[in-house]
Amino acid sequence: MRSSAMRDMMAITARPEIISLAGGLPDTSTFPSETFAAEMDRITRTAVAEVLQYGPTEGTVLVREQITKIMAAEGMTVDAADVTVTTGGQQAIDLITKILIDPGDILICDAPTYPGAIPTFCSYEADIIQIECDADGMRMDLLEQTIADLAAKGRKPKFIYSIPTFQNPGGVTLSLERRKRLVALARQHEILVVEDNPYGLLRYEGETVPTLYSLDGGNYVVYIGTLSKILSAGLRIGWLVSPTPIREKVVLGKGASDLCTSSLTQDFAGHYFAHDPWREYVDELVGIYRNRRDAMIGAMSEYFPHGASWNKPHGGLFIWATLPDVLNTADLLAKALTKGVAFVPGTAAYVDGRGASSMRLNFSGVKEDEIIEGIRRIGSVAQEHLALYETMTNTNEMRLPDLDENGGNS
Amino acid sequence: MRSSAMRDMMAITARPEIISLAGGLPDTSTFPSETFAAEMDRITRTAVAEVLQYGPTEGTVLVREQITKIMAAEGMTVDAADVTVTTGGQQAIDLITKILIDPGDILICDAPTYPGAIPTFCSYEADIIQIECDADGMRMDLLEQTIADLAAKGRKPKFIYSIPTFQNPGGVTLSLERRKRLVALARQHEILVVEDNPYGLLRYEGETVPTLYSLDGGNYVVYIGTLSKILSAGLRIGWLVSPTPIREKVVLGKGASDLCTSSLTQDFAGHYFAHDPWREYVDELVGIYRNRRDAMIGAMSEYFPHGASWNKPHGGLFIWATLPDVLNTADLLAKALTKGVAFVPGTAAYVDGRGASSMRLNFSGVKEDEIIEGIRRIGSVAQEHLALYETMTNTNEMRLPDLDENGGNS
Repeated sequence: MRSSAMRDMMAITARPEIISLAGGLPDTSTFPSETFAAEMDRITRTAVAEVLQYGPTEGTVLVREQITKIMAAEGMTVDAADVTVTTGGQQAIDLITKILIDPGDILICDAPTYPGAIPTFCSYEADIIQIECDADGMRMDLLEQTIADLAAKGRKPKFIYSIPTFQNPGGVTLSLERRKRLVALARQHEILVVEDNPYGLLRYEGETVPTLYSLDGGNYVVYIGTLSKILSAGLRIGWLVSPTPIREKVVLGKGASDLCTSSLTQDFAGHYFAHDPWREYVDELVGIYRNRRDAMIGAMSEYFPHGASWNKPHGGLFIWATLPDVLNTADLLAKALTKGVAFVPGTAAYVDGRGASSMRLNFSGVKEDEIIEGIRRIGSVAQEHLALYETMTNTNEMRLPDLDENGGNS
Repeated sequence: MRSSAMRDMMAITARPEIISLAGGLPDTSTFPSETFAAEMDRITRTAVAEVLQYGPTEGTVLVREQITKIMAAEGMTVDAADVTVTTGGQQAIDLITKILIDPGDILICDAPTYPGAIPTFCSYEADIIQIECDADGMRMDLLEQTIADLAAKGRKPKFIYSIPTFQNPGGVTLSLERRKRLVALARQHEILVVEDNPYGLLRYEGETVPTLYSLDGGNYVVYIGTLSKILSAGLRIGWLVSPTPIREKVVLGKGASDLCTSSLTQDFAGHYFAHDPWREYVDELVGIYRNRRDAMIGAMSEYFPHGASWNKPHGGLFIWATLPDVLNTADLLAKALTKGVAFVPGTAAYVDGRGASSMRLNFSGVKEDEIIEGIRRIGSVAQEHLALYETMTNTNEMRLPDLDENGGNS
């Protein structure tokens, strides 16, 4: 499932009658309209001409300073001069790939990985190697072996892309031990790691784990952040922190791509983080999303077929579920859409067709009752498919002796 | 002058003590703050959650419909389904180049061309051929010869990029006859033309000329538009109109680049064009910019050195001036910055070092008195450089006989 099929699906899921567990949408309905009004009133009084004008390619000073504050909340010390504001985290992924990858260059990422990164990687003709994740994130033994195998052939990956915390789509978090090992491997082999961390502040349980950036100090780790999940996706504000030589290329690439990110949305976001109680809003989101996660897991326990498995993520937006391997989730999706529910089939998170019996389920964008109803419908479709499969298998089993008795001709 | 040097210059020109004739900034100071306030009040009451959320990759229906209306104002008939909203016109240039160009592919453009397009073309490793412009725009005889020469070598350009109306940086407009010929050539040779038209509605005198898109009907012409010069550059809203097979690739490319353009800025722009008197605002800008153009031309007549030449553009934002060819405008710029004035040296508009005695001057972003003072300073620096050159030349002339008399040893 790639590209246009994915897009058609996203268009279908935008229909109001569909319960979409497919997107990665934050819940923006609880953002206080009085805060929005106050910021816009301030702009009306003081900054209309400014917000309608071009801004600096690297982003405004105010927003870059606020970004250092947000990163400090996750234990990172960053100089605002090293921050480049991007048009969402997606543009940060695009720019770093554009800068580092020439056609045929090797790029390593999680298996499964963020489905939205794959078209970007492919657009620069990266040779993508996916390293299997388990409950503790990307397996370092497999990564080390892959790097060694490549070195034996005289090759080296250009970078390792990972979402170590509350991974999209797997929901898993890279353990501290593996983080240390990953940073050590990066240094030892002089390989850049691109740490994408959209969800780090959305933790529902468990202890905080330091980011790769903080463990490394920003030497081999390029960091991608975004406001999409802690304030708004509609502002299109993300960022990239990178060592100076890369940052210069990032800013040039950004200029060639879209000149600058919206001055209006930067002004709103910059003042919001400078003056409004943003941590309280994030805490509120954490409470909402935790309940939705729990509702989804409860519903899966009730409605998903025997043999299905899933994890309970400690944060983020997604649960990764795997159905009995006789089921194909792309086929299941076609049926599920007719029942008014959508999800992302697992193959969208791999470049090699893996994930055919898995699915990514989002719990942040839909209210509990709809989550429960959506999971019930998916469960019902899955049960139907399983029953159909069993009928077909039984029929075949009944026929096989027939075939034998008749000497192979019926 | 490319890339980081250009960026450093842009950073310098952002300093308030510098009169910058270097940018391509619209004047946003006259936008009515009550209109801004009214739109934001409407959003506060009805659409906060929506504008903070992701939107469709191809842009909202409302904005795409308003874009067809804007294009109709320039005589074009377009289906909203063929419009892709982009993060400014720059992203439209980026996406179409990304889709059409593989490394080494040939791309034809104006000479001089938009300085901001060159880094984009180079980032995809296009082989750029620039076709000389005269007072009637790109020379079709040279274009035809170039296409024939390429065909003789079994090659064909992937596309022809042009700003036919009030060209950036040349200020010239492609004549109707040449437009017809360009469209005919495109059809005959099956070459796409990318028509970039940011300034078409900013006409200060003369008759409207039909766009290439309207002459062609959208078969071989891909059209790029933007709100940056008729409403706001800070909203980052541009668009691309393309035939269906290209449009699908554009939308996929857009998704990989930044997922979608800001929902907040789209909502503002969509409702503004749907309900507010946007033509009156554009008329107001036309009046302001016409006066500024005239002020700049008046000042150039007064302060620029004998032997300098320039055109009087019928619209747009730029005047292209050429100084006596002993002057190098990159050298001149270094001196001009110390005098508190900036411009874009001509070499930024070429890929081959041409334009060394030319400069691009912007008259839209600065008030008349500053335009006059800025031109006075540039004129003064140019006169100084000329006087220095003449002194050096005279000195050399005086020395030459000395050398001869002394048998070549001094």
